[in-house]
Amino acid sequence: MLQAALRSGAAHRRAVFEVFARHLPGGRRYGVVAGIGRVLEELERFRFGEEELAYLRDKRVVDESTLAFLADYRFSGSVCGYREGDLYFPASPILVVEGTFAEAVLLETLILSILNHDCAIASAASRMANAAGGRPLIEMGSRRTHERSAVAAARAAYLAGFTATSNLMAGHAYGVPTAGTAAHAFILLHDSEKSAFEAQIASFGASTTLLVDTYDVPEAVKTAVELAGSDLGAVRIDSGDLAAAAQEVREQLDALGAFKTRILVTSDLDEYAIAALAAAPVDAYGVGTSLVTGSGVPTAALVYKLVARETATGKLEPVAKRSVGKPSRGGRKHAYRLLDETGHFETELVTTSPGGVVPEGGVPLLHPLVEDGTVVGGEPLEAARARHREAIARLPQDALHLGRGYAAIPTEFA
Amino acid sequence: MLQAALRSGAAHRRAVFEVFARHLPGGRRYGVVAGIGRVLEELERFRFGEEELAYLRDKRVVDESTLAFLADYRFSGSVCGYREGDLYFPASPILVVEGTFAEAVLLETLILSILNHDCAIASAASRMANAAGGRPLIEMGSRRTHERSAVAAARAAYLAGFTATSNLMAGHAYGVPTAGTAAHAFILLHDSEKSAFEAQIASFGASTTLLVDTYDVPEAVKTAVELAGSDLGAVRIDSGDLAAAAQEVREQLDALGAFKTRILVTSDLDEYAIAALAAAPVDAYGVGTSLVTGSGVPTAALVYKLVARETATGKLEPVAKRSVGKPSRGGRKHAYRLLDETGHFETELVTTSPGGVVPEGGVPLLHPLVEDGTVVGGEPLEAARARHREAIARLPQDALHLGRGYAAIPTEFA
Repeated sequence: MLQAALRSGAAHRRAVFEVFARHLPGGRRYGVVAGIGRVLEELERFRFGEEELAYLRDKRVVDESTLAFLADYRFSGSVCGYREGDLYFPASPILVVEGTFAEAVLLETLILSILNHDCAIASAASRMANAAGGRPLIEMGSRRTHERSAVAAARAAYLAGFTATSNLMAGHAYGVPTAGTAAHAFILLHDSEKSAFEAQIASFGASTTLLVDTYDVPEAVKTAVELAGSDLGAVRIDSGDLAAAAQEVREQLDALGAFKTRILVTSDLDEYAIAALAAAPVDAYGVGTSLVTGSGVPTAALVYKLVARETATGKLEPVAKRSVGKPSRGGRKHAYRLLDETGHFETELVTTSPGGVVPEGGVPLLHPLVEDGTVVGGEPLEAARARHREAIARLPQDALHLGRGYAAIPTEFA
Repeated sequence: MLQAALRSGAAHRRAVFEVFARHLPGGRRYGVVAGIGRVLEELERFRFGEEELAYLRDKRVVDESTLAFLADYRFSGSVCGYREGDLYFPASPILVVEGTFAEAVLLETLILSILNHDCAIASAASRMANAAGGRPLIEMGSRRTHERSAVAAARAAYLAGFTATSNLMAGHAYGVPTAGTAAHAFILLHDSEKSAFEAQIASFGASTTLLVDTYDVPEAVKTAVELAGSDLGAVRIDSGDLAAAAQEVREQLDALGAFKTRILVTSDLDEYAIAALAAAPVDAYGVGTSLVTGSGVPTAALVYKLVARETATGKLEPVAKRSVGKPSRGGRKHAYRLLDETGHFETELVTTSPGGVVPEGGVPLLHPLVEDGTVVGGEPLEAARARHREAIARLPQDALHLGRGYAAIPTEFA
C-alpha cells in the first residue's frame, strides 16, 4: 500500500485518519479509553532499524524507494484524542491522526493493537470495579495472557478502578501498586500446612495473607489464627462456593477473636460473580482470567479509517467507503459531551464543522496529544485513574447495569 | 512465596511442577501444543537485571537475601514436554519442570503466559485450517490484539496450518511467510478507484490483489480487469454476504475472461463462517479478530502445579491439593499415546510409574527440552507445523466436528 502510494505520489497527500468503534461489542453500555499513554510512548520510538530494513530488503517485501522512506521514518504529524480514563460510545472519534498518508497509514497497526487491547481490558475492569462497590480488586491474571499483554492489562485495570496488580513489571514500568499472595505450591512444598504458615509468618509477620483451602478450610483457619493470633492480616479462599465459604470462614474467624482478619476470595471471578458476592463477608477480590481476556470481549472493535485527504488541487476533502454494513463517515471530526442539568452525561455530539462553536455546556473531548511530531499530551497514570472515577459518577444510573444493553448515551451527528 | 521459602529453607528442596489443562474450554475436542519454542528462547534469557533488582529493593517487595538469590538466578534444572504442534487432551502433562522449588516456581508466570496464549491461538487456528480444507488462510489479526501478542499469534497460527501472516515482525522473528493486501484507505486516498488500482498495478504488476468493495463491487471488478487484464492475480471482498458476493464476482470474472483471477474473502471470519463458505467459489481466506482472540477461547486454561517435592529426608514425594472442584493429581508423570489398528489416536495414557515400560504401540509424548539448564529441545518452526499436520490426520474423524463436544480421545491414568 505504502509502496504503491509512494510511486503514484499520493503518499504525500495530507490525510486524516480516525479511530472509532462502530458499536460496543458484548452489549456493553460504555467503553473506557485506555492505552493513550502507551501509544504516545511507542510513537516516540517507532522507527525502522537496520535489522528490520535488512529483513524487508532480503525478502523483497518492498522496493528500494520504500526502504529509503522507511529508513528516514519519523512521524511529523499531529494527533488529538480522548483523554485516558474517559469513556467512549459508538462513533466517538477517540483518536484523530493527521499527517501525510504515508506517515499516518504506517501507524494503523501500532495504534489499533494498543487501543483495542487496552480499551477492552479497561472496559471489563471498570464493570468489575462497579460490581465490587468500594471493595479492593487485585489484578492476578498475568498467567492467563501473553507475557507482554499481561503488563499492559495490569496498567489498564488499574486506571479503570483496580487497586493493585500481582504483575511486578507493571509496578516497575507504570507505577501500579503491587500485591501478591502465596500459591498452593508453597503450602504443598512444606511438610505440613502448619509449617508452611509458620514460614510465611516468620518472613512477613502476622499481617500476611494465608491461603486456607489447600486441604481443609476450617482446619487451616484454626491453624492460621493459632499461629498468627488475632492480628492475622487476611486469609485467601480459592475454591468452592465462595459466598458460603466466606460466610463460614467469617464466623470462624470471629469466634476465634480474629475480627480484623480480612477475607480475600479468588477463583475465576468476573463482574457477575463479584456482584453475586456483594452480600457475602468478603473484603477483597483477586481477579485473573476474565480480566485479562476482557470478560467475553477480548478486543474493542476499534477501527482506523481514512476520513479526509488532500485532493490533487491541495484541498482537504472528506472521504468515506460504502462497503455493505461497514460504511464510514467522512470528514475530520470534533466531539463534545453534553450534560443534563444534574451534571450527568446526556449526549455524545460528533460534528465535522471545523473549529465549530462549542455547544452550550458541551465539554470538548478531543485534546492535543502530538503536535508536529512532538508528544504534548503525556500525563501520569493517576490522572487517568481519577478521570475515570469522575466519568463513572457522571453516567446515567442504568449505565452500570451488568446485563447486555445499548450505549448509555446516544451519539448524535451535527 | 519465594522469600518465605528461602527463609524456611524449603526453597532448596527438589520440586516437580507440571503444566496441564483440567479441561478443554469451549467444548473443544483437542488442544494444540504451541509456544514451546518461545518458552525455550525466553528461558535462556530469563534473568533479573540491575534495573529490576533496584525496583524490588526500592519498593521493599522482597528482602535482601531474596534479592541476592534473584541476582544470581539462572535456571539449572530440567524440562521435558510435549513437542510443539502435537495435540493435548485434559490432564496431558504438557510440560514437566524439575529443579529446586525456588528456581522452578519463578518460571510459573513466564511459562503459563506463553503457553496459555499460544496454545489458545493455535487451537483456534487448527479448527479454521480444518474448516478451510486445502484453501489457504492468511492471518490478518494484528490490529485486534496487543502489539506483541500479535507476533506470537502469527507464529501459532502458522504452526497450526495457516499459510501466511500480514505481520512482518513474525516474518522477521520466526520466518513465517508474509502476505498483505491494500486497505480501503488506499482506494480512498486516490481521486478515483481506477487511479488507485492503476497505482497498485504499476507498482506490483497484474498479479496483485485488488480490493473491490470500497464503492460498488461489479463496477470495481470491471475496472480491475480492464486495467490488469485476465492476468489479474486476485480480488478481495471484505463486506456483505461473502458467499453470494463471491458467486457473483466469480461469474463476472469468468465472463470477463479472468478465469485464473482468485477471490480472497475477509470480514470477521471464524471457523464456522469459513465452513459455511466451503461451497462458495472462494480461493483464500483472510482471518483477523477471531484468530487472535482464540475464537471464543482466548486462553487455554493451563495451570502449573507442584506435583512432587523432596521431603526433609531427601526423598521425592508426590503432593496434591484437595481444593473443592480443583484437585491436583500428585506425582511426576509420564505420558504415551496409544493408537488403534488403523494408526489413529485412541487413548492418552498418563502414568506415574517412574521410567515405566512403554505400553505396546504406545508413543512417548514427553521429550527432553532442557537438561541441567541447557536447552536441548529447540527445533525449526516447520518441524512443528509438519508434526501438527500429521497429528490431525491421526485424530478420530469426529474430532474435526466444529460443534461443542468432549475430548476426542479419553485420558486414562495407569
